[in-house]
Amino acid sequence: MTFDERLLYYQDITEKQIKKYMDFSQEKQERLFQAMRYSTNAGGKRIRPVLALEFGRVCGGSIDAALPAACAIEMMHTFSLIHDDLPCMDNDDIRRGRASCHRAFDEATALLAGDALEMYPFEILTDCTNYGVKAENVIEMIRLLAEYAGHKGMIGGQQIDTQFVNCVFSEDDLLEMYRLKTSRLLQAAACMGCLSAGADIQYVQRAYEYGDRLGLAFQIVDDILDICGNEAEVGKPVGSDEKKNKMTFAAVAGISAAKEKARQLTDEAFDLLNGFEDSGFLKQLTLKLLNRNK
Amino acid sequence: MTFDERLLYYQDITEKQIKKYMDFSQEKQERLFQAMRYSTNAGGKRIRPVLALEFGRVCGGSIDAALPAACAIEMMHTFSLIHDDLPCMDNDDIRRGRASCHRAFDEATALLAGDALEMYPFEILTDCTNYGVKAENVIEMIRLLAEYAGHKGMIGGQQIDTQFVNCVFSEDDLLEMYRLKTSRLLQAAACMGCLSAGADIQYVQRAYEYGDRLGLAFQIVDDILDICGNEAEVGKPVGSDEKKNKMTFAAVAGISAAKEKARQLTDEAFDLLNGFEDSGFLKQLTLKLLNRNK
Repeated sequence: MTFDERLLYYQDITEKQIKKYMDFSQEKQERLFQAMRYSTNAGGKRIRPVLALEFGRVCGGSIDAALPAACAIEMMHTFSLIHDDLPCMDNDDIRRGRASCHRAFDEATALLAGDALEMYPFEILTDCTNYGVKAENVIEMIRLLAEYAGHKGMIGGQQIDTQFVNCVFSEDDLLEMYRLKTSRLLQAAACMGCLSAGADIQYVQRAYEYGDRLGLAFQIVDDILDICGNEAEVGKPVGSDEKKNKMTFAAVAGISAAKEKARQLTDEAFDLLNGFEDSGFLKQLTLKLLNRNK
Repeated sequence: MTFDERLLYYQDITEKQIKKYMDFSQEKQERLFQAMRYSTNAGGKRIRPVLALEFGRVCGGSIDAALPAACAIEMMHTFSLIHDDLPCMDNDDIRRGRASCHRAFDEATALLAGDALEMYPFEILTDCTNYGVKAENVIEMIRLLAEYAGHKGMIGGQQIDTQFVNCVFSEDDLLEMYRLKTSRLLQAAACMGCLSAGADIQYVQRAYEYGDRLGLAFQIVDDILDICGNEAEVGKPVGSDEKKNKMTFAAVAGISAAKEKARQLTDEAFDLLNGFEDSGFLKQLTLKLLNRNK
């Protein structure tokens, strides 16, 4: 398989499986189900599921064993976007080129759809036991997802982010926030992939470090795009960080220093990938994420 | 131990253990931690932890094995209260006699504190493996909590609840909503208690049915108190359902029919408890919940 074929394949099986997980019979909470489907079907790069599936593969696991983790991590990511867009948070009307969940539905439904997409991943992960993943590893996947996405991870990062408005913070403060807000879910994706394949702890650790670097680089690229990107390509209003008086690494360090930092982090991510066999796809993916223009 | 001694003991160990789980070192997301602590320390009857601990005991399990489930279910309940109080939901300023989370902090922090208290239970449940609970049972506890609290359970019930405003629904519709919104978490508490003790499936099933009846009765009593209760005792404004044009079973069926229904459900709950040895405490608790005045 070429890089593009594999990428499309991963995106395709994840989206199909998520649709299956969302195939609820018509009930009184149908509006909630619609909002859950609306936001999970919104497209996007599906980076987290791709990481889960590919780390599973390079660790010698099966697609079936990694697929619940791939769907779980995408739902967790989607939950965070829905709540991030709410009026009391970023108050964004547009997400991925169309109405954000609370604009397409209403605030209460968006709140609950986010809540539901935060919960469902844990039910889905228990499904792994049906695909040969050892119970101990399933429990570790659950523990890790809850920790990395929770108050000491992603949600904690979002809290810090809300406090960054109109404040002055150092470059290190910003990197620490990015680590929580962005890296943690990528780390969960990569580590869950390894665990689904029954990989040894040193691989899980390496995946953890890789996700850390990837997340920082990814977020810095996001900052740069917010300043320099093209609105039609980015799919959301450009300059939104500045308008909200949000500090970003790119704004504090400057564009060229930010680009250099992203490049350095990518080099570190590459080195970590050398610890895995057959890591060509992951290396290409890493490069693609750094060089993206949206 | 007398009934009151055991009740106090359960409330006490749960609150102490939750405090331990919330003993985070000072970090940049300290405000989030404060909000999580504020809402979990808000008092309340701690019915769900008490159920988890007591079902664990009557099934022959240890306190240590059931305690993570007790804390997890209380956090899950607290998450639902925080989000329920938000302006886009019930818009309640008061919870348990003091400011609701978003009034004591701010909306963004309350949203995130709710999110964090929804997530943390899954991390905590993985802790059960350290207290002799079999991995398969831990996974079943996690699956069950995610399902009963999720889109087909409690969160689905909250969605239906938001749609009940200014609408006419039948008594059966209302009972179905109560089943999701209130019974499901009580069922999760009771069933997780049984699973923590390694109980056979028929006990888990009986606990499930018991939680169903208890939840319905509990919610109907809540309706009655909202119409007939004393504001100082109830700890929240009385008549709030009517003011919001919210349909309740007590309003639709009438107070005396509602009281009769609660009594009938309690009888059924009692019969189910006869399937457990040493169920005196659970019977007293059930009666206490029906006869409460707040």
